[in-house]
Amino acid sequence: MTAYKDLSRDELLELKSGLEARFTEIKAKGLKLDMSRGKPSAEQLNLSMEMMDVLNSGANLTCEDGVDCRNYGGLDGIAEAKQLLADMMEVPKDNVIIFGNSSLNVMYDTVARAMTHGVLGSTPWCKLDKVKFLCPVPGYDRHFGITEHFGIEMINIPMTPTGPDMDLVEKYVNEDPAVKGIWCVPKYSNPQGITYSDETVFRFANLKPAAEDFRIYWDNAYCVHHLYEDKQDYLIEILTECKKAGNPDMVYKFSSTSKISFPGSGIAALAASDANLKEIRSMMQVQTIGHDKVNQLRHVRFFKDVHGIVEHMKKHADILRPKFEAVIDIFEKELGGLEIGSWTKPLGGYFISFDSMDGCAKAIVAKAKEAGVVLTGAGATFPYGKDPHDSNIRIAPSYPTPEELSLATDIFVLSVKLVSIDKLLGNL
Amino acid sequence: MTAYKDLSRDELLELKSGLEARFTEIKAKGLKLDMSRGKPSAEQLNLSMEMMDVLNSGANLTCEDGVDCRNYGGLDGIAEAKQLLADMMEVPKDNVIIFGNSSLNVMYDTVARAMTHGVLGSTPWCKLDKVKFLCPVPGYDRHFGITEHFGIEMINIPMTPTGPDMDLVEKYVNEDPAVKGIWCVPKYSNPQGITYSDETVFRFANLKPAAEDFRIYWDNAYCVHHLYEDKQDYLIEILTECKKAGNPDMVYKFSSTSKISFPGSGIAALAASDANLKEIRSMMQVQTIGHDKVNQLRHVRFFKDVHGIVEHMKKHADILRPKFEAVIDIFEKELGGLEIGSWTKPLGGYFISFDSMDGCAKAIVAKAKEAGVVLTGAGATFPYGKDPHDSNIRIAPSYPTPEELSLATDIFVLSVKLVSIDKLLGNL
Repeated sequence: MTAYKDLSRDELLELKSGLEARFTEIKAKGLKLDMSRGKPSAEQLNLSMEMMDVLNSGANLTCEDGVDCRNYGGLDGIAEAKQLLADMMEVPKDNVIIFGNSSLNVMYDTVARAMTHGVLGSTPWCKLDKVKFLCPVPGYDRHFGITEHFGIEMINIPMTPTGPDMDLVEKYVNEDPAVKGIWCVPKYSNPQGITYSDETVFRFANLKPAAEDFRIYWDNAYCVHHLYEDKQDYLIEILTECKKAGNPDMVYKFSSTSKISFPGSGIAALAASDANLKEIRSMMQVQTIGHDKVNQLRHVRFFKDVHGIVEHMKKHADILRPKFEAVIDIFEKELGGLEIGSWTKPLGGYFISFDSMDGCAKAIVAKAKEAGVVLTGAGATFPYGKDPHDSNIRIAPSYPTPEELSLATDIFVLSVKLVSIDKLLGNL
Repeated sequence: MTAYKDLSRDELLELKSGLEARFTEIKAKGLKLDMSRGKPSAEQLNLSMEMMDVLNSGANLTCEDGVDCRNYGGLDGIAEAKQLLADMMEVPKDNVIIFGNSSLNVMYDTVARAMTHGVLGSTPWCKLDKVKFLCPVPGYDRHFGITEHFGIEMINIPMTPTGPDMDLVEKYVNEDPAVKGIWCVPKYSNPQGITYSDETVFRFANLKPAAEDFRIYWDNAYCVHHLYEDKQDYLIEILTECKKAGNPDMVYKFSSTSKISFPGSGIAALAASDANLKEIRSMMQVQTIGHDKVNQLRHVRFFKDVHGIVEHMKKHADILRPKFEAVIDIFEKELGGLEIGSWTKPLGGYFISFDSMDGCAKAIVAKAKEAGVVLTGAGATFPYGKDPHDSNIRIAPSYPTPEELSLATDIFVLSVKLVSIDKLLGNL
């Protein structure tokens, strides 16, 4: 393959005309395909349907410690659900609180509490002139949405193949007391699928924050979300490392079963130090009498233990793996050597990250939309929706059927080519 | 019966000695009885067990508008759940948002949002020097807990047999721009079981708040929670009245199925004007991808429609009614004419409110505890836990079995008598 940049103007124009003909043809089909969000497919949801049967009208809904799951109470979760999610999150059971159906909501609430009440006695953030968060980019749009909502200034931290640029992280965290947090998806990151290296985790654990209320917001959303049995990333456990480093209170770790059982009907959890959890429980007590214990019990009875989760995730992987591979195969076949884009090849998680030539991402997303393919908005992977290079696009291969996915990827590739040619021709 | 106050010192001492002997006898039994919280009994929870069967592994979990309830999405609830709760709340379906398992959490979030973001463009409350809430007393401790948590100053408003003292409410709301809200349980109020009269509701709807961001926090927790079929309180619908009065945005109405299906595993709802809901949705969108739609569908498939809820509530009433009557019978038989206490006789809800002689409530609760009966802490029905007369005690008859309840009420009555005698003897 010749790189596009090495083609003459005439060669580009000729190429363009052929591609445009194909594009017009596909556009005429009036397709509607969605690669925008990390939603499991119907086939994946079917994997958990038997969870609907584990609690029937004849079931005993009393949990291990004698609590009737149907009634009020149980502020921080039933013991067996704590055990299940603690094992999944690789932390002691007593360092876990079980919440409702959304870890995003737990993260939102954690920031909201800091805004109005501070963190372990610090000044409430709403009383401060300036609060800043570090945002590894590209990253998860809903994280950035929370900090933007609360008027928190977001600072881009470039991702590297081993995690966020730790020189920058250390500089900001250790020197600026206005920096109160950093958003992390440490395993199979959203959208790149990068897992933080051991050294990155060690450096996180050994930060010396200028702010006593600085916290690492460690969203371990994809902790058991491998695509392969024989090729898996491994992430060092952050709570243990922070404790060893003398920073036991410096991290909040979030997770949920949203992409394990049913998105929206799963259970979420937060793991943190005793001191952090004590404070959170005391505030939660004002907010709720307790989360849905019946659903907690349903999850425990279905998965039984963490091994049940691991086995279940293999079934998800069997459905997801061919989809990831299909997209990457088309990318390699169609875009390899053209030097108009690069992409990640993750071993887990829900996304492939694509980088176009600078200044092309918005146009590619718009082009694909013309032919009926919805992608995550260009810029969404950056705070304030502003990608300084206008180059990153998040690809979510999970939701479409394999047929839809191939078609959508073809359209995407075509869009990349057309926009890149326009860019090289100086039309953008 | 001779009123205790008309007995001589010697008569009181003699009475006391007999009562103390009985108390010692009962205390020796080492009982453990709980009349502290409005928890449904196991028998009531059994009424909803068939809800566990309506969604099994063979069920179609697609809702009316084609949404797969198992997946992400559906920020403000599935259409059929909105219809069900709208009918129960007597509001149009489009004026309802369905939330997670806890209306308390919805109320907390509503105040939390006002703290950090204000209400429809007003100054965020955390930026104000002073924010005040009116608190009809006696009232619900968890309401007061929310406002106390956010440092909001609470002002006691005495309850009357027709609702809060509206002269006082009008004075505060219409004159003081720092007054941003009032907590109301308008039907079968907690703890008195009072339902606001038509005139009270009209006066609420016609308030002329000094603060543009003043809202009525209308917690209609007991909207369908009647004890009798032939004797029911009727409450005028507040959203309609506010609209008629030109105050469409002035009220947030809360409800849930916590005491209809399973406490902690029900669904909650908020009803409000279009403008209020638009703002709430836009903020919710940052907080969550959506609440548990599977549980929403489970509720709809079980109850079918509001008539299903009404029929279901008759079964709850059949279990609750004898308990309320048993407590009130014992009160009338044992305390009638003694002039050492008065109590309410509600037609619905979850509580009986007891008023002792001034300065006796704390001592009564402590005395009952000695014999193993846990009551809601004296003072809990007032902001900051401070009952200015130390006289109100909330009785929750729902949770104990009928046998336990009789025993607990006997102990309570005995405690009232003993403490009242001490009060009259000048020993308190």
